[in-house]
Amino acid sequence: MTDLDRVISELVIANRILAREGVVDAFGHVSARHPERPDRYIMSRSRAPELVTADGLMVFELDGTPVDPRGRQPYAERPIHSGLYEARPDVRSVIHNHSYDVIPFSVTRAQLRPMIHVAAPMGGSVPVWDIRDKFGDGEMLVVTLDQGRDLARTVGEGAVALMRGHGCVVASQSIKLAVMTAVYTQVNARLQMDALRLGEPKYLSSSEIETMTKRQQTPLASERAWEYWRQRAGASDL
Amino acid sequence: MTDLDRVISELVIANRILAREGVVDAFGHVSARHPERPDRYIMSRSRAPELVTADGLMVFELDGTPVDPRGRQPYAERPIHSGLYEARPDVRSVIHNHSYDVIPFSVTRAQLRPMIHVAAPMGGSVPVWDIRDKFGDGEMLVVTLDQGRDLARTVGEGAVALMRGHGCVVASQSIKLAVMTAVYTQVNARLQMDALRLGEPKYLSSSEIETMTKRQQTPLASERAWEYWRQRAGASDL
Amino acid sequence: MTDLDRVISELVIANRILAREGVVDAFGHVSARHPERPDRYIMSRSRAPELVTADGLMVFELDGTPVDPRGRQPYAERPIHSGLYEARPDVRSVIHNHSYDVIPFSVTRAQLRPMIHVAAPMGGSVPVWDIRDKFGDGEMLVVTLDQGRDLARTVGEGAVALMRGHGCVVASQSIKLAVMTAVYTQVNARLQMDALRLGEPKYLSSSEIETMTKRQQTPLASERAWEYWRQRAGASDL
Amino acid sequence: MTDLDRVISELVIANRILAREGVVDAFGHVSARHPERPDRYIMSRSRAPELVTADGLMVFELDGTPVDPRGRQPYAERPIHSGLYEARPDVRSVIHNHSYDVIPFSVTRAQLRPMIHVAAPMGGSVPVWDIRDKFGDGEMLVVTLDQGRDLARTVGEGAVALMRGHGCVVASQSIKLAVMTAVYTQVNARLQMDALRLGEPKYLSSSEIETMTKRQQTPLASERAWEYWRQRAGASDL
Repeated sequence: MTDLDRVISELVIANRILAREGVVDAFGHVSARHPERPDRYIMSRSRAPELVTADGLMVFELDGTPVDPRGRQPYAERPIHSGLYEARPDVRSVIHNHSYDVIPFSVTRAQLRPMIHVAAPMGGSVPVWDIRDKFGDGEMLVVTLDQGRDLARTVGEGAVALMRGHGCVVASQSIKLAVMTAVYTQVNARLQMDALRLGEPKYLSSSEIETMTKRQQTPLASERAWEYWRQRAGASDL
Repeated sequence: MTDLDRVISELVIANRILAREGVVDAFGHVSARHPERPDRYIMSRSRAPELVTADGLMVFELDGTPVDPRGRQPYAERPIHSGLYEARPDVRSVIHNHSYDVIPFSVTRAQLRPMIHVAAPMGGSVPVWDIRDKFGDGEMLVVTLDQGRDLARTVGEGAVALMRGHGCVVASQSIKLAVMTAVYTQVNARLQMDALRLGEPKYLSSSEIETMTKRQQTPLASERAWEYWRQRAGASDL
Repeated sequence: MTDLDRVISELVIANRILAREGVVDAFGHVSARHPERPDRYIMSRSRAPELVTADGLMVFELDGTPVDPRGRQPYAERPIHSGLYEARPDVRSVIHNHSYDVIPFSVTRAQLRPMIHVAAPMGGSVPVWDIRDKFGDGEMLVVTLDQGRDLARTVGEGAVALMRGHGCVVASQSIKLAVMTAVYTQVNARLQMDALRLGEPKYLSSSEIETMTKRQQTPLASERAWEYWRQRAGASDL
Repeated sequence: MTDLDRVISELVIANRILAREGVVDAFGHVSARHPERPDRYIMSRSRAPELVTADGLMVFELDGTPVDPRGRQPYAERPIHSGLYEARPDVRSVIHNHSYDVIPFSVTRAQLRPMIHVAAPMGGSVPVWDIRDKFGDGEMLVVTLDQGRDLARTVGEGAVALMRGHGCVVASQSIKLAVMTAVYTQVNARLQMDALRLGEPKYLSSSEIETMTKRQQTPLASERAWEYWRQRAGASDL
């Protein structure tokens, strides 16, 4: 299996996992940087993640131009991915989602912060990007490179940013880490909402975030989670 | 496939989707204006939406009289549909549901408002209709044309109205848009309840509502969602 | 099919429905008065409701003595049923459950009240029974006839009572009505908890409760719900 | 079937049940003391509980050293189990989980307390252990014997302790009781969060905790629950 084969397989599985775990619904998408061409990325044609298949995967230039479209319709919001791959050479996978549990933190002053160790990879501070700040009142989708680049600046060197009234973006060093970060960002959001009703929660310290992010990236943790989510998603033989 | 065939197929699928997404339970119904006879509409005989089949669909005059009942029992609340098709020539599909997440907004002063872009089609202001205001204390079902017409006046030129202690009505320009509006009105209600506990949420502006409603109606969005919900509902080969 | 056959079939289906709808978990039970012997009632041997089968049904004297035990172990809390059948000749079915959504109302001063029309059969006022008030501090199960009779006095002429830190009892004129009342009492509890966080809810008036209880008991409503729940529970061919 | 065969079978089923009931996700583990060698315990190799099988079970010395590893990778946090088996000769099963409903009580001052009779086995007072108190700021996993022993001291003679921002540990006299305690601790946490929003809940008295713990341990209760959870987990023929 070549690196490319592996990336294709993982991308399809990642789509199924994100659907099964409720991180995406009809909308949302996950991409990976091309393993042989770092100036390109791979993402499905426009389809609900649960329905994504390998033959629907398309290759894009960094600016979002499809390399070999063959009549397939790409997602409108690929500038989210373009902006991050362009700004962050370390990023190898990007997820955009409308995770229901995360969105309340995008429209209020409550700040999403890691409270459980498995959510450490989301980082200490999750910024909120509001398209209205620079691009005016009306359009909420990220459909131009300028918008994608601006969103990428909000992500900065971090892993997660929220998009006001819209959703979330995750940028990671691998597909598996992106999936883990997206899933546990969602879990943390649900638990933080619960905890905030009980009192002021204790959040992870920066030292805990650093240490537990490394723990979550060990194969012992990341492969165990991937194997589990893959089976739950019915993707064991994909 | 004629327009009528397509409407019949979509109606059955819409029933299954609404059941699968929890928008309806044992109760609730979805109808469509007859594509060849705008003075008629099509809706299932009285049955839980999850169990609706094509051969249970009945045709009604605008006033709710069944055209060819053949002994089939219609829903008691078809005046909800009659009132809207009569008042709104642009309306081609109507949904009545008891969506659990929506109902708390029907019995309190909290106002249901779009907070996420995918819920833009519900419109900026969702009115609450209380049958008690004009029809007295006791009956809560909409069983007369007068009641249906009064409810339609509350909907006005909008897409959604709540019914106090009862549920919700959606009026749209197509079956697919009605389903999308009903599903995301429910999602928005759940997220708004969550967000209200975190602080005062930022709602969509009127310009955002207008722009994002158009976005949600493009085939890119509406067909992607329909294909997904249809598969989730096990209705791919219906 | 004799009346007895019908009751046996409905009892098994009722057990499956209550399990599927989350009204019962490993614990809880549903009984029916014997259709030919009003001084007896029928209930499963001690087993989780989801696993109940017709051949596990046992017949009991009104005082809870098994008529033909054949070594089968009955539920310990059958005095709940005994108390109600003895006190209320109109009652033909009794459900005891630990519905998770209902229990918070049993341990706080918040009063469970109907807020949605489909929950009208639960009645306007749901009392809370605390075994500690008369039977001392320690035992929380209803294991004596005295306890069962005391609980029945709290139910009075009503349909539902809560048991502090324990659960709920439903007494109805038929198995189908008992199931509907139990399911929608649970739904109402969840929605009332949501609504209470948004403000003071509008509850059903006594006239609405009366009118809508009748509506829910018409075959149009009760058979539609039963058919739906039965199919969801995978009990269509039981 | 020998005692060892029975323990092996119950351990595999316990893993499936905990996964099905949402007590564990990709992480968490359950162990049992070896029935013939009280100085040893049995636990799966590092794998998500839903995927655990009998041939992945490993035997450990009390200090966590694998007896016959054959290249299998054990869980990193087995000192949780070591600490409890060493300190508590009465303990025959230990569960570590990240139950989502329980975690908010680990990061706030709200105290998890039994409010429903089926949760009596969790005990009257659930302490919270914070690894930061003695082991410094950074590592949140229990990976040394010192840490495991310190956690065991927090559990003391009780059945449950929370771990700040991490999860929960359960120590019981049998596998079945450990599973019941873990499941109903989670249910109680969810209901207590709901109840706390309605007002100050009435908790179980110490006499009720004692009496109802015994009730839950009778075969009438414990076997009924086990049979049910086992079937729900699809583990009836394991």
